[in-house]
Amino acid sequence: MTAELICVGTELLLGNIVNTNGAYIAQKCADLGLSMYYQSVVGDNMRRLCKCFRAAMKRSDVVILCGGLGPTQDDLTKEAVAKVLKRELVEDKKSRRHIEKFMKQYLRNTPEKTITQNNWKQALIPEGAIAVENANGTAPGIIVEEGEKVVILLPGPPGELIPMFENQIYPYLHKRQPEIISSRTLKICGIGESQAETDIRDLIQRQKNPTVATYAKPGEVHIRLTARAADEEAAQKLIEPVARELRNRFQDKVYTEEEGKTLEAVVVELLKSRGLTVTTVESCTGGALSARIVDVPGASDVLKQGFVTYSNKAKRKLVKVKKSTLKEQGAVSRKCAKEMAEGGAGAAGADGALSVTGFAGPEGGTDQYPVGTVFIGCTFKGKTRVKECHFNGDRSSVRAQAVVNALVLLRQCILEDSPADIKKTSSSSE
Amino acid sequence: MTAELICVGTELLLGNIVNTNGAYIAQKCADLGLSMYYQSVVGDNMRRLCKCFRAAMKRSDVVILCGGLGPTQDDLTKEAVAKVLKRELVEDKKSRRHIEKFMKQYLRNTPEKTITQNNWKQALIPEGAIAVENANGTAPGIIVEEGEKVVILLPGPPGELIPMFENQIYPYLHKRQPEIISSRTLKICGIGESQAETDIRDLIQRQKNPTVATYAKPGEVHIRLTARAADEEAAQKLIEPVARELRNRFQDKVYTEEEGKTLEAVVVELLKSRGLTVTTVESCTGGALSARIVDVPGASDVLKQGFVTYSNKAKRKLVKVKKSTLKEQGAVSRKCAKEMAEGGAGAAGADGALSVTGFAGPEGGTDQYPVGTVFIGCTFKGKTRVKECHFNGDRSSVRAQAVVNALVLLRQCILEDSPADIKKTSSSSE
Repeated sequence: MTAELICVGTELLLGNIVNTNGAYIAQKCADLGLSMYYQSVVGDNMRRLCKCFRAAMKRSDVVILCGGLGPTQDDLTKEAVAKVLKRELVEDKKSRRHIEKFMKQYLRNTPEKTITQNNWKQALIPEGAIAVENANGTAPGIIVEEGEKVVILLPGPPGELIPMFENQIYPYLHKRQPEIISSRTLKICGIGESQAETDIRDLIQRQKNPTVATYAKPGEVHIRLTARAADEEAAQKLIEPVARELRNRFQDKVYTEEEGKTLEAVVVELLKSRGLTVTTVESCTGGALSARIVDVPGASDVLKQGFVTYSNKAKRKLVKVKKSTLKEQGAVSRKCAKEMAEGGAGAAGADGALSVTGFAGPEGGTDQYPVGTVFIGCTFKGKTRVKECHFNGDRSSVRAQAVVNALVLLRQCILEDSPADIKKTSSSSE
Repeated sequence: MTAELICVGTELLLGNIVNTNGAYIAQKCADLGLSMYYQSVVGDNMRRLCKCFRAAMKRSDVVILCGGLGPTQDDLTKEAVAKVLKRELVEDKKSRRHIEKFMKQYLRNTPEKTITQNNWKQALIPEGAIAVENANGTAPGIIVEEGEKVVILLPGPPGELIPMFENQIYPYLHKRQPEIISSRTLKICGIGESQAETDIRDLIQRQKNPTVATYAKPGEVHIRLTARAADEEAAQKLIEPVARELRNRFQDKVYTEEEGKTLEAVVVELLKSRGLTVTTVESCTGGALSARIVDVPGASDVLKQGFVTYSNKAKRKLVKVKKSTLKEQGAVSRKCAKEMAEGGAGAAGADGALSVTGFAGPEGGTDQYPVGTVFIGCTFKGKTRVKECHFNGDRSSVRAQAVVNALVLLRQCILEDSPADIKKTSSSSE
């Protein structure tokens, strides 16, 4: 089956936003074994949108449109689809109730008092279509089955589109595919993409089913194995030997093979399984590290508190960094990172601590430690390690890399210093 | 004049890379006053590429193709263009010399010894076309003037494409364009998109030049005014009266009219201009609020430290929340948010503090305060406000909304409680 994507929105044609939905949906379609030959972007204009959609319906089996489902007059996507498919727009009762509930919740936070009329427009769907609930917004997604073809309409904001696709559209499309495509991703940390690719070049070239592909993520490399087979079990049989070979080559650099599991989730699990708590002491990352750990549901079992020690005074007062260290070595130094971690663990009464101090830029930096230099400290059970990193990129990029590298260091320390069999007996999670 | 963009590359259709060239070129075309109605992505396939290019030539004045100019067999863009325009491919001597020079330099850094034959293919251009030197790579850009129309071929790597566009293509197109397009964005916080649109529906409908359009961002609404005129000054004259009308309607909800300026940057500026410092006390956001403030270069002047008080014990120990408050009202309560803010300001010795406590989910919540309930506290100069919010969405979404709403509350408190004329004399930034 072939799929085609139409992204709707004048803001894309004006270059105000980057079309990340395009890459996301293309990747998912590839996972599903759908062949995509065309993507288009078209503005909020009825005539051109209809023209684009008509051409797509002629040449593709699955046509996905994203954007233009909102409450405003600009939002024309489903009107265009209804027009081309010659269907009336009718109100979907369930969607209306969802909008009402969602908006009532929303209105509690604002001085606005009533749900404006234009919101109800979002409950309209083409006659005979399937409304897809939007957990994170008001506009439902829509599936229209038109003969052998399928039209799928999705809301534009990635925060609404992605969960809807993962939970509802992907399973729907998966069912329509006769041959299944199954993939497994081995997620690897602590190694760069070009090195990873070099290490497995023979597999990439030799393997046809499953195929082997590498994807670089900030601070991580994901290796995806994708097999085509009659059913899931047959696909897994093809995948397993290659996965085993990869595990042999990368050893404990492979932190998970579970879809949707993040590095921070793995770290939280490791801590939980050993009954350990950790605290964070952050300078240049300013809370981004603790925020990422707290993003994991249940993180409260392992992280009770954290410190943002942005100024030298805060480093001294909150986590007892020595005045002499700051004076002689500076706040961006191996010694300061060590003292931040050790002092943080003490102040929080935690089993361990992770510290980050560096020059994120654009200002700051010294000859010895230019912008991009970051020291990451990790202490557990009296043993402290400090890693010196040198990152490229702007302020945001340096900070993001520092966060990932801190998580990688934490994982490494737990694995090496607290093997799984030495568990604290006090842990409630065991 | 109308422009159309065709991005060529199977890696885009597979979602392996995000199409940032699309946004870049779209923005430049908008700046030039070229109206872009269509963008497409097509793979490295001769038949589909020709079809796509033919359609574009029919409907647009300027057709820009990017990608597919490299040395490999996959690279088909200029072959397709030459075929459709019925021109021979001929070698451009200057381009050949450039390739030779460039490759000799490149070979000095690699173990490879000779220039492979396929490189010379890059010196071929359609007969009568203009070769555009590529300062950062081997494949030249190409301009083909075809009657009144123009076809522009650009290399795909952004590091080659962007400098070539800035230095050579932009000036070329500018000469052909009699009119310019200029736009200004008013960024608004503390109001939803549907309400904002309702408030300015008359302007959206009445205004043709400038046009008025709204865009929803998490917790914000952006209103863009876009004018077409002979020059920048004339465009601004058209925009200003409409901007004034919007400022009248939204008053201090408009937080900036500067391109690229974020809400957090405005908040940091407000604090700096008044010589105020702030601290953060975060429970469910776990450091995401302080991280967002620290994202602003120079944030160290206003935020010296922050607290992540995820557990009750941390709330008591670090920021002196009363045991009785936690016992009687719970950690997610108006009173706890108040005490977190006040205690945090005291502990940090800051002029003010922002606190966040709530149920981000998926676990937690009570009948009175279900998942999505967040209390945000803000204290300044002895006056504390607490805002009760009820957010929709998953854990990440609730936390993201809490962060934006905290920034909005902080901005509101500064504007109302610390008018610009009452400045602290001790501030170093004045």
